[in-house]
Amino acid sequence: MTVDISEDELITAIGRVLSGTGPDVLVPVGDDAAVVRGGTGDLVLTTDALVEGTHFDRTMSTPRDIGYKAIAVSLSDIAAMAGSPRYALCALTLSGDVDAGWTMELFGGMREATDEFACALVGGNLARGSEVTVAITLTGEVARGAVVRRSGAEPGDVVVVTGTLGGAAAGRRLARRGAPWTEDELHAIHRHERPAPRVGEAPVLARNGATSMIDVSDGLTRDLVRICEASGVGVRLDPAKVPRHAAAAEGEALGGGEDYELLATMPSAAAAADAAGELADVFATLLTPIGTIAVDGLQTIDDTGATHPLEPSGWDHFA
Amino acid sequence: MTVDISEDELITAIGRVLSGTGPDVLVPVGDDAAVVRGGTGDLVLTTDALVEGTHFDRTMSTPRDIGYKAIAVSLSDIAAMAGSPRYALCALTLSGDVDAGWTMELFGGMREATDEFACALVGGNLARGSEVTVAITLTGEVARGAVVRRSGAEPGDVVVVTGTLGGAAAGRRLARRGAPWTEDELHAIHRHERPAPRVGEAPVLARNGATSMIDVSDGLTRDLVRICEASGVGVRLDPAKVPRHAAAAEGEALGGGEDYELLATMPSAAAAADAAGELADVFATLLTPIGTIAVDGLQTIDDTGATHPLEPSGWDHFA
Repeated sequence: MTVDISEDELITAIGRVLSGTGPDVLVPVGDDAAVVRGGTGDLVLTTDALVEGTHFDRTMSTPRDIGYKAIAVSLSDIAAMAGSPRYALCALTLSGDVDAGWTMELFGGMREATDEFACALVGGNLARGSEVTVAITLTGEVARGAVVRRSGAEPGDVVVVTGTLGGAAAGRRLARRGAPWTEDELHAIHRHERPAPRVGEAPVLARNGATSMIDVSDGLTRDLVRICEASGVGVRLDPAKVPRHAAAAEGEALGGGEDYELLATMPSAAAAADAAGELADVFATLLTPIGTIAVDGLQTIDDTGATHPLEPSGWDHFA
Repeated sequence: MTVDISEDELITAIGRVLSGTGPDVLVPVGDDAAVVRGGTGDLVLTTDALVEGTHFDRTMSTPRDIGYKAIAVSLSDIAAMAGSPRYALCALTLSGDVDAGWTMELFGGMREATDEFACALVGGNLARGSEVTVAITLTGEVARGAVVRRSGAEPGDVVVVTGTLGGAAAGRRLARRGAPWTEDELHAIHRHERPAPRVGEAPVLARNGATSMIDVSDGLTRDLVRICEASGVGVRLDPAKVPRHAAAAEGEALGGGEDYELLATMPSAAAAADAAGELADVFATLLTPIGTIAVDGLQTIDDTGATHPLEPSGWDHFA
């Protein structure tokens, strides 16, 4: 952008222009997905675009992986509202140098993801452009009133995160560096190519009382600050507790983004422990307490108990 | 595309890969929109992308008009299924040379269209790319089982079209040519910049028994052939009856595209006349019989009653 405003500031400005304020609009722009009143449950709606050069590189990724990832990132947004994915649409822009085979492989990858997570790719649109863009819209369902928003965190809540962080960023770095790779490094590359949205895990967190939730798409600290801002609270983050992928550097775990893990706040340490037990048993997924919601102040806390200002790092697509 | 298959062939191939075949998927890819079973009614879903260079030119169109048109073309798809628009999402790709003001104007134009047609723009996504792409997803509702598909035309049905055709194509040509313009020419340019989706008219056609319906987005003859192919029927088109915009050439009326009028088949001349009367009274919208559905053969018919092969003209985005 030629302007000096951030992506978040632009989204806030756009939110004022949107018409998402009727009585049937339960969550307008500004959360992981919009929520509107459906016939029986509530309908969760999200849209995302993967743009060549920005989000993928055709020389580095297969069309099958790009298609899978396009669906996975939208699945992650529906999960972060505690919704169940239902129907996907794809608006695809193709450049002149991709052929029908490439396009079919792309749709094949989307199909793999929709099959794996029990939703259906029901429609789409093709257009021409100078670069490949894969814009996915996903609808999901949630029982009426059961969405988990970003805005419900309360002082005293325990901050938790699923899985490990930094793997996707490490994978991107390692894929660019080239072979040879260790087993951990190959796993990180797989995390980057085929992120695993936490579709099954999210309802478990919701059932155990999660007060707020977001998916870690732009980096842990950046997404944590979004929860704090939406909830009007502060946080004490313990960086030493952040579960780091075996191939990731500390900076990648705190600000790397694209891990699509769930970051949530739980009402008590007991609720966090219950959810952790259930996730371990059913999904073999880690759930790690990494901090505490505070009345105000965005801070990290070190081994000695001393606090330092939390510096949000991560992606701003327009920075 | 570097391949020698058409857009329609590619869409057919993609349709085979999509997962839209479950019991709740009522209309999969291949119609104006997908239809899935909703809580009470049925949910209609469509997605479209406007790509800079292909669908608009920032030096010729204002961001407000581009935003309006992006919503309008999706509204037209929902209308062509006899659905009522409800919720819109926008996945926007921005190039480095647009500023926040341009972006806000774009959303302002979308808001104008959603306000005018009583739907809500509830969410979106921003990404960076080398060109501006506006991908819109729209959901709509229709009473259970009340959608009008492309595939229901029967021999003997009367082919009707709303409004006049060729205006958008003429407007595009005239805008490029530059001023001075006559009043008719200015109206054509307005048709090109701000198409009027037939959201109110569509349910009237459906109520009067329309057996198939499509919106004229890629050119009358091309879209008419789509109805015939989907329905497994032929047609006798009377080109002299096609209602032409005052500024349009005959070729523009038959193959110009982007008019977003409704092309439908009615079960009888009486049903067509009833619908025409209602549309004239309520919306001051023309409805013109332009041909008859036949058992087979795609033909035009001239004043003397002689038939000629119908040559589909119009847009193939990949030709």
